[in-house]
Amino acid sequence: MPPAPGDREARRKDVSEAVWQVLAEKGFGGLTLRAVAAAMNVSTGMLMHYFPTKRALIAHALDLLETRTAERPRRARPAEGLATVRTMLLDILPLGPDDTARNRIWVSSWDLALADRGLAADQAARYTRLRDSLRPHFVAALARGELGAGAAAPDQLAASAVAFTHGLVVQALFDPARFPEDVQTAMLDDFLGSLRAGEGSSGGSC
Amino acid sequence: MPPAPGDREARRKDVSEAVWQVLAEKGFGGLTLRAVAAAMNVSTGMLMHYFPTKRALIAHALDLLETRTAERPRRARPAEGLATVRTMLLDILPLGPDDTARNRIWVSSWDLALADRGLAADQAARYTRLRDSLRPHFVAALARGELGAGAAAPDQLAASAVAFTHGLVVQALFDPARFPEDVQTAMLDDFLGSLRAGEGSSGGSC
Repeated sequence: MPPAPGDREARRKDVSEAVWQVLAEKGFGGLTLRAVAAAMNVSTGMLMHYFPTKRALIAHALDLLETRTAERPRRARPAEGLATVRTMLLDILPLGPDDTARNRIWVSSWDLALADRGLAADQAARYTRLRDSLRPHFVAALARGELGAGAAAPDQLAASAVAFTHGLVVQALFDPARFPEDVQTAMLDDFLGSLRAGEGSSGGSC
Repeated sequence: MPPAPGDREARRKDVSEAVWQVLAEKGFGGLTLRAVAAAMNVSTGMLMHYFPTKRALIAHALDLLETRTAERPRRARPAEGLATVRTMLLDILPLGPDDTARNRIWVSSWDLALADRGLAADQAARYTRLRDSLRPHFVAALARGELGAGAAAPDQLAASAVAFTHGLVVQALFDPARFPEDVQTAMLDDFLGSLRAGEGSSGGSC
């Protein structure tokens, strides 16, 4: 008898969870049917029903990463301007275990993406969307007089904020003891503080 | 007759060049004996003399990356303080083809390094050295009064500068048209300008 639809759905979730575990531990470089099968304690043959090719497995992994990133819990965004930017960037940083796993998998995906024209274009588009999502809050910060008179254009501020945040992600992933939550947060606050009008590098929070 | 020592040395250089080409194009995820052999138009059997295992190939690739990074041409460092920091960070950014290839290979190596305890420790130590090399110039910048009164400690400024730079590297690798040399340089100058004493975000160069 074929499994009931509910069973198939449950099994599909188990497969996704196992793919995620393998990614979090070994990255895309270590993502194989064998590794996923071992994480689930099933045969690779069983997994071939889900992923007939390595490419299908990678496509599922990238989908999963995209979905889990979109659906991650986020902080409330009560304000506008630099305070909103701060909240959005805190939602990216690897401050807890789930955020750390997600970031670790994103960083891992860059090797894959840089070697594939289509995936590289996807990643470039993802960066454009991220900058575009920050941009209006820098526009608001300018309008509210939060930024220094010589502040760069909102597009460039958004690119700089993404640069700072992702570069901090990478350093923190390699050295979590050097970059615990409070250090990452203080660095973000100093970065944003340095953009503030007339304060130089304030070191304060938004 | 065995090849003369000079021939062996020349062949070794050819092998390294082929490894570099494969890395620049496909990253560590695409680094295989087969790919290197194809780049050299030789048999994989011939390459087995150099790299009996995949691990030996990866070790050579990492050595090559380390060596080529250490030996890359660098800008003169005429001044101290923030001007020196600027020069050091310009020497990291992917402003030309060689710098782009090297950065692309470094970013690719992160997937490998995050999955291997020893390589991750090497990368964490590399980040520590990079921050330590920047630190004295932030100390000098503070002593020279170049930084705002509320400036963060030199350790944290160094970590932020590395974060900003590496995050810019990644964005530029994925979208070189959006981040040509002048945009990267302007972003770096704005970043450093925002740290300057009493200017807020000055947008000027050091």
